[in-house]
Amino acid sequence: MKLISETKVFDGHQQRYEHASEVLDCTMRFSVFLPSQAENKSQKFPVLYWLSGLTCTDENFSQKAGAQRMASELGIALVIPDTSPRGDDVADDEGYDLGQGAGFYLNATQLPWKPHYRMYDYIVDELPQLVEANLPVTDRRAISGHSMGGHGALVIGMRNPGHYESISAFSPICNPISCPWGEKAFSAYLGADRQSWEEYDATVLLSRATEQQPILISQGEDDEFLEQQLKPNALETAAEAAGYPLKMEHHAGYDHSYYFIASFIEQHLRFHADYLLKP
Amino acid sequence: MKLISETKVFDGHQQRYEHASEVLDCTMRFSVFLPSQAENKSQKFPVLYWLSGLTCTDENFSQKAGAQRMASELGIALVIPDTSPRGDDVADDEGYDLGQGAGFYLNATQLPWKPHYRMYDYIVDELPQLVEANLPVTDRRAISGHSMGGHGALVIGMRNPGHYESISAFSPICNPISCPWGEKAFSAYLGADRQSWEEYDATVLLSRATEQQPILISQGEDDEFLEQQLKPNALETAAEAAGYPLKMEHHAGYDHSYYFIASFIEQHLRFHADYLLKP
Repeated sequence: MKLISETKVFDGHQQRYEHASEVLDCTMRFSVFLPSQAENKSQKFPVLYWLSGLTCTDENFSQKAGAQRMASELGIALVIPDTSPRGDDVADDEGYDLGQGAGFYLNATQLPWKPHYRMYDYIVDELPQLVEANLPVTDRRAISGHSMGGHGALVIGMRNPGHYESISAFSPICNPISCPWGEKAFSAYLGADRQSWEEYDATVLLSRATEQQPILISQGEDDEFLEQQLKPNALETAAEAAGYPLKMEHHAGYDHSYYFIASFIEQHLRFHADYLLKP
Repeated sequence: MKLISETKVFDGHQQRYEHASEVLDCTMRFSVFLPSQAENKSQKFPVLYWLSGLTCTDENFSQKAGAQRMASELGIALVIPDTSPRGDDVADDEGYDLGQGAGFYLNATQLPWKPHYRMYDYIVDELPQLVEANLPVTDRRAISGHSMGGHGALVIGMRNPGHYESISAFSPICNPISCPWGEKAFSAYLGADRQSWEEYDATVLLSRATEQQPILISQGEDDEFLEQQLKPNALETAAEAAGYPLKMEHHAGYDHSYYFIASFIEQHLRFHADYLLKP
């Protein structure tokens, strides 16, 4: 992996890397925030993986969420991948909600998507291996994300118990098998067999979970996508039925934007710190 | 003035307004952050005016600086104007450092700029009158900005003693009459008479100041524009010669980006609060 930019922020290092992804078969970029190691040059940090939403790259969260302040204070590294494979050779679509910028954190089984669209394997396996081999981080991980990335964080976290200490999401797509964004993307990437969609649906996965993990979800009540796309009530209903101690907070007046994330990212980082930093 | 968008952030209101500017003779947009008035619906807030740098609009600082967190906590409103007159009828230039997006907070005397490029009068008179007549704010003001906007904050603050309680700047263009950005812009907007440039040069103004005001400046030592364009040493030398108690802080490792602003905006807001909120 190659460092392509580095900027100091909150006494730490905001970096951008480029690497040849084997899993995705293309060149990928991701951003990293590393807290200052001023006092101890061999210090290693636990990592919060942040999965971004539709149309985003690794830069939106880096620039707009203000997460580095609290990550610096708590001593947590941030790793912020892109939202899909990229490049002229990678299949794409005219819609903002399919193709590049809209990988939905799954492994596609259908053409033309199948060769590159394997974001699930990239996030679960390749990226942490790369990060842990090359950066001053431990193998203690947490995962979070926004919207499509909130869906990704919930699905990846729940399908890999023990891989992440804690899971959180802002405004996640909670039940993609029954919303327009999910139906469009899953039809294209996974095909017509709706049963194959269920392993990428947080509500289905939670209702079948055999292990309970710490999960925090924040949702704005004035979110323009709340009823049609996000469906937090479906996940809450499944959690109640399963006796799963999901922590879901509804915030009056907040919408789907990064201003909502900025307002509550400190709470999410402190939530993850409780698990990432415990002895 | 017309409200064109509103988003909740840190329990307050991030708003965007559009209005017909008489001074600039065009339609202008500006952003506002108002802290929550939950406990007292008639509460009014003092205002920090933020002047942005080259190529920016009112949105860059709003989205990237993370200023709303501390503005909310301290009870300070933010008003964030655009960086020049705008529109198809407004003169422009191909360079990023002249014309639209590069108003330099002065009143142009030369064609084709003279009819619209009057950002000095807009910031000093028209905008605060509009804001104070229409929003829940007091007439206690502070002013800050970044780069070209840091130049604007210093010049406007120093030329109007009593108008602002305090002045600050990030990475300001301290001596525009002797740097490439300033020489290009002032030649175009003000013409060949270099003496007319001096009333827009912070270093000249400070050396001639008859009143001392609280000024805080933050400058990154790895700023890519430090030596050629910003010249903080010229301002520091003038301050020493004049016995002006300028507070200039040099921060190792920081560059010219919004990551630098984000890292120190809390300090600047607390600095302004000491003056804006005192009885």
